[in-house]
Amino acid sequence: MKRNDGRLTNQLRPIKITYNVFEYAAGSVLFEIGKTKVLCAVNMQNSVPPFLKGKKTGWLSAEYAMLPASTHIRSERELNACKRNGRSQEISRLIGRSLRSIIDFDLLGERTIVIDCDVLQADGGTRTACITGAFIALKVAVNQWVKEGVIANSILKEEIAAVSIGIKNNSLLLDLDFAEDSSIDADFNIVMTKSGNIVEIQGSTEKKSFSGLQLQQLLDIAQKSIDEIFALIDNQKIFKPKAPFNPIRISSSTL
Amino acid sequence: MKRNDGRLTNQLRPIKITYNVFEYAAGSVLFEIGKTKVLCAVNMQNSVPPFLKGKKTGWLSAEYAMLPASTHIRSERELNACKRNGRSQEISRLIGRSLRSIIDFDLLGERTIVIDCDVLQADGGTRTACITGAFIALKVAVNQWVKEGVIANSILKEEIAAVSIGIKNNSLLLDLDFAEDSSIDADFNIVMTKSGNIVEIQGSTEKKSFSGLQLQQLLDIAQKSIDEIFALIDNQKIFKPKAPFNPIRISSSTL
Amino acid sequence: MKRNDGRLTNQLRPIKITYNVFEYAAGSVLFEIGKTKVLCAVNMQNSVPPFLKGKKTGWLSAEYAMLPASTHIRSERELNACKRNGRSQEISRLIGRSLRSIIDFDLLGERTIVIDCDVLQADGGTRTACITGAFIALKVAVNQWVKEGVIANSILKEEIAAVSIGIKNNSLLLDLDFAEDSSIDADFNIVMTKSGNIVEIQGSTEKKSFSGLQLQQLLDIAQKSIDEIFALIDNQKIFKPKAPFNPIRISSSTL
Amino acid sequence: MKRNDGRLTNQLRPIKITYNVFEYAAGSVLFEIGKTKVLCAVNMQNSVPPFLKGKKTGWLSAEYAMLPASTHIRSERELNACKRNGRSQEISRLIGRSLRSIIDFDLLGERTIVIDCDVLQADGGTRTACITGAFIALKVAVNQWVKEGVIANSILKEEIAAVSIGIKNNSLLLDLDFAEDSSIDADFNIVMTKSGNIVEIQGSTEKKSFSGLQLQQLLDIAQKSIDEIFALIDNQKIFKPKAPFNPIRISSSTL
Amino acid sequence: MKRNDGRLTNQLRPIKITYNVFEYAAGSVLFEIGKTKVLCAVNMQNSVPPFLKGKKTGWLSAEYAMLPASTHIRSERELNACKRNGRSQEISRLIGRSLRSIIDFDLLGERTIVIDCDVLQADGGTRTACITGAFIALKVAVNQWVKEGVIANSILKEEIAAVSIGIKNNSLLLDLDFAEDSSIDADFNIVMTKSGNIVEIQGSTEKKSFSGLQLQQLLDIAQKSIDEIFALIDNQKIFKPKAPFNPIRISSSTL
Amino acid sequence: MKRNDGRLTNQLRPIKITYNVFEYAAGSVLFEIGKTKVLCAVNMQNSVPPFLKGKKTGWLSAEYAMLPASTHIRSERELNACKRNGRSQEISRLIGRSLRSIIDFDLLGERTIVIDCDVLQADGGTRTACITGAFIALKVAVNQWVKEGVIANSILKEEIAAVSIGIKNNSLLLDLDFAEDSSIDADFNIVMTKSGNIVEIQGSTEKKSFSGLQLQQLLDIAQKSIDEIFALIDNQKIFKPKAPFNPIRISSSTL
Repeated sequence: MKRNDGRLTNQLRPIKITYNVFEYAAGSVLFEIGKTKVLCAVNMQNSVPPFLKGKKTGWLSAEYAMLPASTHIRSERELNACKRNGRSQEISRLIGRSLRSIIDFDLLGERTIVIDCDVLQADGGTRTACITGAFIALKVAVNQWVKEGVIANSILKEEIAAVSIGIKNNSLLLDLDFAEDSSIDADFNIVMTKSGNIVEIQGSTEKKSFSGLQLQQLLDIAQKSIDEIFALIDNQKIFKPKAPFNPIRISSSTL
Repeated sequence: MKRNDGRLTNQLRPIKITYNVFEYAAGSVLFEIGKTKVLCAVNMQNSVPPFLKGKKTGWLSAEYAMLPASTHIRSERELNACKRNGRSQEISRLIGRSLRSIIDFDLLGERTIVIDCDVLQADGGTRTACITGAFIALKVAVNQWVKEGVIANSILKEEIAAVSIGIKNNSLLLDLDFAEDSSIDADFNIVMTKSGNIVEIQGSTEKKSFSGLQLQQLLDIAQKSIDEIFALIDNQKIFKPKAPFNPIRISSSTL
Repeated sequence: MKRNDGRLTNQLRPIKITYNVFEYAAGSVLFEIGKTKVLCAVNMQNSVPPFLKGKKTGWLSAEYAMLPASTHIRSERELNACKRNGRSQEISRLIGRSLRSIIDFDLLGERTIVIDCDVLQADGGTRTACITGAFIALKVAVNQWVKEGVIANSILKEEIAAVSIGIKNNSLLLDLDFAEDSSIDADFNIVMTKSGNIVEIQGSTEKKSFSGLQLQQLLDIAQKSIDEIFALIDNQKIFKPKAPFNPIRISSSTL
Repeated sequence: MKRNDGRLTNQLRPIKITYNVFEYAAGSVLFEIGKTKVLCAVNMQNSVPPFLKGKKTGWLSAEYAMLPASTHIRSERELNACKRNGRSQEISRLIGRSLRSIIDFDLLGERTIVIDCDVLQADGGTRTACITGAFIALKVAVNQWVKEGVIANSILKEEIAAVSIGIKNNSLLLDLDFAEDSSIDADFNIVMTKSGNIVEIQGSTEKKSFSGLQLQQLLDIAQKSIDEIFALIDNQKIFKPKAPFNPIRISSSTL
Repeated sequence: MKRNDGRLTNQLRPIKITYNVFEYAAGSVLFEIGKTKVLCAVNMQNSVPPFLKGKKTGWLSAEYAMLPASTHIRSERELNACKRNGRSQEISRLIGRSLRSIIDFDLLGERTIVIDCDVLQADGGTRTACITGAFIALKVAVNQWVKEGVIANSILKEEIAAVSIGIKNNSLLLDLDFAEDSSIDADFNIVMTKSGNIVEIQGSTEKKSFSGLQLQQLLDIAQKSIDEIFALIDNQKIFKPKAPFNPIRISSSTL
Repeated sequence: MKRNDGRLTNQLRPIKITYNVFEYAAGSVLFEIGKTKVLCAVNMQNSVPPFLKGKKTGWLSAEYAMLPASTHIRSERELNACKRNGRSQEISRLIGRSLRSIIDFDLLGERTIVIDCDVLQADGGTRTACITGAFIALKVAVNQWVKEGVIANSILKEEIAAVSIGIKNNSLLLDLDFAEDSSIDADFNIVMTKSGNIVEIQGSTEKKSFSGLQLQQLLDIAQKSIDEIFALIDNQKIFKPKAPFNPIRISSSTL
C-alpha cells in the first residue's frame, strides 16, 4: 500500500521535541510529529479533588484543547458553545488516565499534577502526540521538582509513549495523518510502557469490523514504533534545567 | 479466583430482556444483567445533522444518562451542573459509534435514528448493557419500520452485543459487578459482531499494565460470552409487534 | 359527556403501584395511572441547604424530569439545552412544596430528603401522579428509616394524594389523559390530605374563565377520588421491607 | 386580627398607577400597591414562536424579573447564576398564561406581544401587582395600536386584575405585605375577570391545610377587591396617548 | 455644526436627579440626562472577594444592565442568552474601576460596596450617566453609613463625574444622544475628578483616527462640563436622610 | 526611575516576529515582546453576522484567550467556568475594534475576517502585543488573498501598532512588564496609525488620577515607540509567501 507522503506502512513521521516552551511551567515541550504540533505543560497544585481530601495521596488531571487556527478549517472555540465538546473531554480523560497509571501518588502526597495539552496544528494523531508529549514534559517537571526539593525522589513508576494505527483494506498503517485518518476502516490508539506492556488500547470502527488476529499484528507494530520513540527521547543525554530562551531541540530527522 | 456471588470467572450474570417498555417508542427494551438495569429506546427523526444535509444518507446518535436513584449513593442530576459530564458523553459516543457500524445509512435515507439509554440501576457494566440493549431495541424498531413501510427492507448489516472483562491479580473476570469493578487492575469493554469480529475494544488501566498475551486470552472469553448472549436473544422465535401492556419477558435463568 | 376511553366523567383511570423498583433508594415506587407511568425514589442526605445550617431542622427537595422516550414525540433532553425548562422547574417546586407540608422537620433534624420523580410514560396527569407516587415512596422510606433506627418515629404529620380535573363545555372531567388535556377549557390540580383538607390547588385557563360555583363542585369530585386512591393504598396491609427482586404489585383493577 | 399597618383584614393597600413610564414601549405603567412597585412594559414583535409559524394566529409571552435593589437584602442577579431561577420562571409563566386568556389571537395575526415586568421594589404581592399592571399597560398598548392602525380593532376579550390573600390562624388577610407573607399559614393568588369569573387560582401551604369552605370565603373577598381595583382603573376617563414626559398619575389615596 | 435638538456643540442635555428611589438600598438615585434615565443603587455586604480575605481592606463591584424596554427596539434579556454580553461586562468593569479610584478601602474594612446600575431608558451616554449617578448614590450611602455608625468617617477621597464626547467631521460634540452616537467618527468617555484630574479616558474609532491635538481640545470641553455637573449636584444644600415616599427632585432646567 | 531589567523609561523590550506559525491560517505570527509571547492567526469566512446580511459589506471579529500555562500561576480555562470572563471579552472587543478601523469592508464584500489571539506567555502588555501581532498577521493574510485572487486589491486603509505606558510616581514608563504593571498608578493602552494618528486610547487608574498634561507627554512617547515598531516591521523587505516549515524570524535585537 502506497502512502501519500511516501512512507512505509510501519514508518513514523519525523518527530521533533522542543523543551521548555513555557517559562512558567514546571515542565513543558512542543511535541511535533509530521505536521501535528502539540504544546504540553505540567504544573503542580497544592490541593487535591474533594474525593481525595485527607487521604495522603495525590492526583493528576489533564486537559486537551485545540487552538481555533490548528485545523484546516478554523474550528469554533468550545467556549463560545458554553460547553466542552465530547471529543475534547474524552481525550482529556484518556490523557489523564494514561499518565496516572505511571505515577506513585503516595509519594506525591496531597498535591495535584495538572497537564495542559493544547494543539497548535492538527494533522492526525493529536491524542497520541499529547500523551507522548505530556509524558516527556512530566519527566522534565519531575526532575525539576526533585532538584528543587519539592519531592524527595522521582514519582514515576514507568515510562510511556503512544501511537495510532489504522486498518485500510486489511493493511495496517502506522501513525496516520489527517488525510489517511479520514478514509480509514478502523482506528486504534495504543499507549505502551517502555517495557512493552499496554496501558491503554482503544480500537473502533464505524465501517468494517476487524479480527483478533489483526489486533495481534497491530500490537507488534505498535511495540516497535514505541521503541523507536523511546530511542529518540533517551538519545538526549540529560534533562537540562529550565532554560526558556535557549530551548533544546532534538529531532528524529537530524539523528 | 472466587467471586463474591459465586460465579465462575468466565460466567455472565443472569440476563433478562423485557420488550416494549415504552409505548411511544418505535422499539424499546429493559435490559437487565444481574442488578444492572438499563432502559433502551429507539426513535426516528425525519432530519439529519447539518453536516449530512442533502447527502442522501442518514445518521444515528445515542444518549446515555443515569437516573439519580440508580446508584448506591444518589448521584446529582447532570442538568443541575449545567453540563453533561465527561463520562456520560464518552459513553454516549461509544454507543452511537458501535451501532452506526452495523447500519446501512444509504438505505435509511436522510433520517436520524435516536437511541436513548437511561440507567435504572447501576451495578457495573452499564455501558456494555446499553450497547446490547440498544441493539435489541433497534432490531425491534427496524422490524416495526419495515412492517409499517417506513423503510423497504432491514437496514441492519450485522448484529452486535457487548461485554466487560477485568484483570485482577492476572486472572480474567467476565462481566464485572460494581464491587469487582472498583478493585480491578485493568478494565475492558468489547463490542463484537455475531460473526465474531470486533467492532470496538477499549482496555485501560490506572494500576497495572497488561500484556498482548492477556489481551488475546481476553478476546476468547469475550467471544464465547457474546455467543451466549446471542443464543438468548435468538431463542425468542419472532419479534412480536408492539404490545406495551403485555410485555414479553425472556430470561436466561428460565431457559 | 362521552370520554374517549368510555370512562364516566368522575372516574379515575386504573392505578397500579409497584413497590421498591430502585434497590438502592430508601423507598421507591413505579406509580401507573392509565398509560401514565412515573418512577418515584426517596433518599436522605446528611446535610441541609445553606439557609438552614445550624437551625436543627430539615428540608425536602424534589426534582421532576421526563425521559426522552416518555412522550408521543421524543422530547429533547433538558440537559442539551443547558437549562432546566420552566415547566419542569415549576412541577419540581410543586412536588416539593406539597410533601414539605406533611413532614415534621424538627423530628427529622439537619437532614434533607431528596425526591426524584422521573416520568417513564406521559399520558396526562404526570404531576399529580408524581405527588401521589412520591408520597407512597416517602411512606415506604420513613418506615424503613424507623426500622433502621435512622429516625426514632415517623416524621409524617399527614397523608396526601393528588388528582387533576378539567372543565370542558361546562362539564367536569376527572383525571384527564393527554388527548383530553389538549382540548380542555380549564385545568386543575388538587393535592388533598386523607382527612379531606386542601394542601395545594392550582386552576388555570387560557380559554374560558370559570366560576366559584364550578370550583366548589370540582372540590367535591376531587375529594371522592382522593378517598378512592387512599382505599387502594391502604388495602395493602403492611409495608414490606425492601425486596427488590420480588416487587409487590397492587392494582386497582385486581382489587 | 390586627395588621401591622392598621389595615382591615379585607382592605387593599393604596394603589398608584403612573402611565407611560417607558417612552419606547407601546404601553407601560409603574404600578404601585403599598411599597411594592412594578414596571410593566408592552411591545409587539412581527413574528411568532416556531410552533405557531404559518397558523395565522398570534402569541403573548411575559418575563418577570426583580432588580437587585428591589429587596430588603440585595438579591443576586439571576444572570450571574447563568440561569433563570425557578421562582422567576414560574411567575413569568403565570403572567403570560393569565394575559393570554383575554386576547383574541386570531385578530392579532402572526405577531407576538411581549410583556416585561420588572420589580422596582418588593414588599409582597409582586406577582399579582405584575398581572394587574401588565393588563393596564396592555390596554394602553392596544389603544395605541388601534390608533396607529397596527390592528383594526381591540383584541381584548375581557379585563383582568389579580390579588393575593393569606390565611393566618384561620383569618383571611387580603393583599399581604412582605412581613405578613413570611408568617402566613397558606397563600393564595387569584386572577379574576371584571365580570367576576376566575382565570387563575393558586393556593398552597407548607404549614397548614385549608378547607373548601375557607376557599369559598376567600373567593368572595377576592371578588370585592377586584371590583375596587377596576373602579380605580376605570375612574380615569380616557386612555391618553403616550406622553412620556408628562406621566399621568392616578392614585387610590387621592380619589 | 447644527445638532438635532438645537443644542450647542458644547452643551449638556438637561439633567434631573431624583434621590432615594429604592427604599431598601443604602443610597440610590434616578439620574436623567435628556431622555437617558438610569437607576443607581448602592448596598454594602459584610464580606470581600476571596482574593482579599484577611487583608483588612475592602472592595467595590458594579453591575450594569439594561431593562428590555429601555431601547427603541426591545432588547433581549441577557439572561435568556445564558451569558452576560461583552458590552455589559465591559461597562460594569468601567463603572467599578472608576468608583474604586475614589474610595479609601482601608477605612472601609473587609466589606464590599455593590453598585447596581439599571438603564430605564437608553438615549445615548448610558455608561457616563451611570458613573455620575452611581457616584451621587454612593455619596448618599456614605452619608447614611456615617450617620448610622457603620463607618466612622467618610471613605470618599474624591468626587467624580463623567461625560461622553464625539468627533464628527472634525467638530467636537458634547454629550451625544443615540442618533448622534450612531453617526459619529470617534467616541470618547471621560471620567474626571471635581479637581479636574482624569480617572479614566476611553477614546475609540472604527471610522476615522484622531490627533493628539483633538484629544487636548476634547479634555477642555470635558472639564467645563464636569464643572457644570458638580455645580448642579452641589446646589442641593444637604443630603437628606432616606425619605422614599417623598423623593427630592432637583433638575438643571429648574435651577 | 530605575527599571527592573535596566531599560530606560522610554525603551521597548526586545521584539521578535516569527511568520507563518500556523500552516492552515491565511496569515499568522508569533509576536514576542520581552517575555510576552502571543500567537495571532487570521482566517476568512464566507459569511457575515446577521445584522450585515445582504448589505454588501464585510466584518472582522477577534477573539483573545490565554493558554492556562501562560501565566506565573496556571490560570483556569475559561471554558470550565462556562463563560468567557469579562477581561477576555473586553480585550477581544478592543482588538476587533482597532483592526476594523483600518479595513475597507466594501472592498471585502460579504465576508468575515476572524482573528485569533492566543497568549503563549504573559509578562505584561498582552493586549497591545496582540493588536500589533494581529495587524502583522492580517497584512500577511491580505497579501496572500490578493495573490490567490480572493480579493482584487489590498483592503487595508492604514497600518496600526500598539503600546502600553504606565505612570508611576509621576514618571512615564513605556511597555510595562508584569511586575511593573502590578505596582503602577495609572495604565494606558494606545493604538496608533503609522501616520501618527490615534485609533484607540484607554487610560485608567484605580489609584491616582492624572492630568491632561501627563496625557500629552504620554502621547509623544507612544508615537516614538510606534515608529520604532514600524521600522522593525518594515525592515523585512517583502512579505514572503507561506512557508510554514521555514519560518522567517526577524528580531529587534539582531537588526
